[in-house]
Amino acid sequence: MYALLIDTPWAEAEQAAQFWSAALGAPTRTHPAEPQFVGLHGAVPGLVTAVQSVDDTPRFHIDIETDDVPAETSRLIGLGATEVTQWQECRILRAPGGHLLCVLPVESPAEVFAAEARTWP
Amino acid sequence: MYALLIDTPWAEAEQAAQFWSAALGAPTRTHPAEPQFVGLHGAVPGLVTAVQSVDDTPRFHIDIETDDVPAETSRLIGLGATEVTQWQECRILRAPGGHLLCVLPVESPAEVFAAEARTWP
Repeated sequence: MYALLIDTPWAEAEQAAQFWSAALGAPTRTHPAEPQFVGLHGAVPGLVTAVQSVDDTPRFHIDIETDDVPAETSRLIGLGATEVTQWQECRILRAPGGHLLCVLPVESPAEVFAAEARTWP
Repeated sequence: MYALLIDTPWAEAEQAAQFWSAALGAPTRTHPAEPQFVGLHGAVPGLVTAVQSVDDTPRFHIDIETDDVPAETSRLIGLGATEVTQWQECRILRAPGGHLLCVLPVESPAEVFAAEARTWP
């Protein structure tokens, strides 16, 4: 589990990011190339946490990073998830119960991934 | 930040708990006194993670634990949250952007809370 995304409608995302930053004591971080994301640095140790602006109702999603996106996507579909769409290199799935998750290539530093990744047969 | 709750409609909660347990490699834990919760042990180190059955659409919420529930609730309302309801000793708020959070008394072991809590003036 790589990240927790607090998906928020665009019109309210800036206010939401300011709120969560102050609520959790986590400074915001932004990157010009990806203006839809506002990172909440250190909100949860070991878990990237960010507010993402979306064209949808408020929700959240979880990012799972993997060194084999097709295999992990197939594993999760085998567990009952359904595929919703793709975005860049990410596969977006809906879990049983209705929540979204994204499967994405490794984003963490290699040594962090090597130390923390779970392996599947 | 104490917990991440994956709130799921009752009819799908068991299937959701089985999915997330397998997806994240986190064994489930239940407690007879609180059948609405299925813990996902170790899903995120340092963060309690659980599927909660709810009479609502799929959503999530975050639990913030505090040694002063009224003061923390007032602080969050001052930051822009609105109060939704109360449940037992918990105050349930809606954040700017529409997401839910709960303010609850300290649940962690005292030494964990002392080491990790953020303090506010």
